[in-house]
Amino acid sequence: MDTISIKTSARCQFVDISDDVVRRLTANGWQDGILLVYTPHTTSAITINENADPDVQTDMNSFLSKLIPVMKDFRHSEGNSDSHIKSSLVGASEMIIVEKGRPVLGTWQGIYFCEFDGPRSRKVFLKFIPSA
Amino acid sequence: MDTISIKTSARCQFVDISDDVVRRLTANGWQDGILLVYTPHTTSAITINENADPDVQTDMNSFLSKLIPVMKDFRHSEGNSDSHIKSSLVGASEMIIVEKGRPVLGTWQGIYFCEFDGPRSRKVFLKFIPSA
Amino acid sequence: MDTISIKTSARCQFVDISDDVVRRLTANGWQDGILLVYTPHTTSAITINENADPDVQTDMNSFLSKLIPVMKDFRHSEGNSDSHIKSSLVGASEMIIVEKGRPVLGTWQGIYFCEFDGPRSRKVFLKFIPSA
Repeated sequence: MDTISIKTSARCQFVDISDDVVRRLTANGWQDGILLVYTPHTTSAITINENADPDVQTDMNSFLSKLIPVMKDFRHSEGNSDSHIKSSLVGASEMIIVEKGRPVLGTWQGIYFCEFDGPRSRKVFLKFIPSA
Repeated sequence: MDTISIKTSARCQFVDISDDVVRRLTANGWQDGILLVYTPHTTSAITINENADPDVQTDMNSFLSKLIPVMKDFRHSEGNSDSHIKSSLVGASEMIIVEKGRPVLGTWQGIYFCEFDGPRSRKVFLKFIPSA
Repeated sequence: MDTISIKTSARCQFVDISDDVVRRLTANGWQDGILLVYTPHTTSAITINENADPDVQTDMNSFLSKLIPVMKDFRHSEGNSDSHIKSSLVGASEMIIVEKGRPVLGTWQGIYFCEFDGPRSRKVFLKFIPSA
């Protein structure tokens, strides 16, 4: 298992961690299998989406915040139930195919850490399973 | 492969299955790898979220039921299309890192079976893949 | 790794790929483990849901398109931010249990490729990890 450390700078933010993932694959000599990219935090998520136009992340972030707003009638006293709900809908992890030590992503895909209750210091866990 | 059996008691309910998962890891001697936690039912889901304050589950449940309501203009005659939609948005499974026979979760994370069309008798499938 | 090729025929469409997955399991001799079913496209997703009544897919599709509409105030110039958002909420992949060369699905479960910006030619990547 390996860990990526991240510092986020806004309440809601998509951080492209694709390069960090590639560096950890190389450093660990992980060659062929699948990689679990996992957030241990309950107000964040991992997703795979377009890495070319940053407007996609902006649109996604602003849409999610309209769809799942901060609401006064939530019972959870920390006031971040919206962050927990986004976390469960986007999901705590993604699985990545690894071949020849590289992630097999689509042309326009990047791997994103989704911050929903920042700014905070965060960690992402990586667990590699070889395919043979 | 192993199975956890659950009885739910409401139409929509989050059931913490973390302790059941730990028990099955121990009983099977599963030590180091990843564990797939999978629901074979199409009106339920698996998620990972906060295990400290039960108000988080209450907020999530009530928000999801407002976001995806039971609607009269759904075509599916069983009248539970909302349950199927929640199932696909939250997702049929989660992957858990296992090290030294224990799930590697964040401090506040629990593993939840999400009932969206209960009360029912349900099963959760567990499949372990060793990392070496 | 193996690949399934798909041609979609509408902007939003759920394509049942369960039979394709079974055929690839057999052709590759994949017997016991987990199978990652992964879309390399950022305006599509993979989900597991009811395979009996096609009205479920119709309801899900029309509900998602109402929940996440094509909006004029999105910044992304390609005009398909709604497709990217659906992709992240439904998710880029699903994990399937495989035993004796067959997917271990629930009675009513099928594996679906979700097209959110078609019609297009698409690919689905399959990566198998043996359990022992």
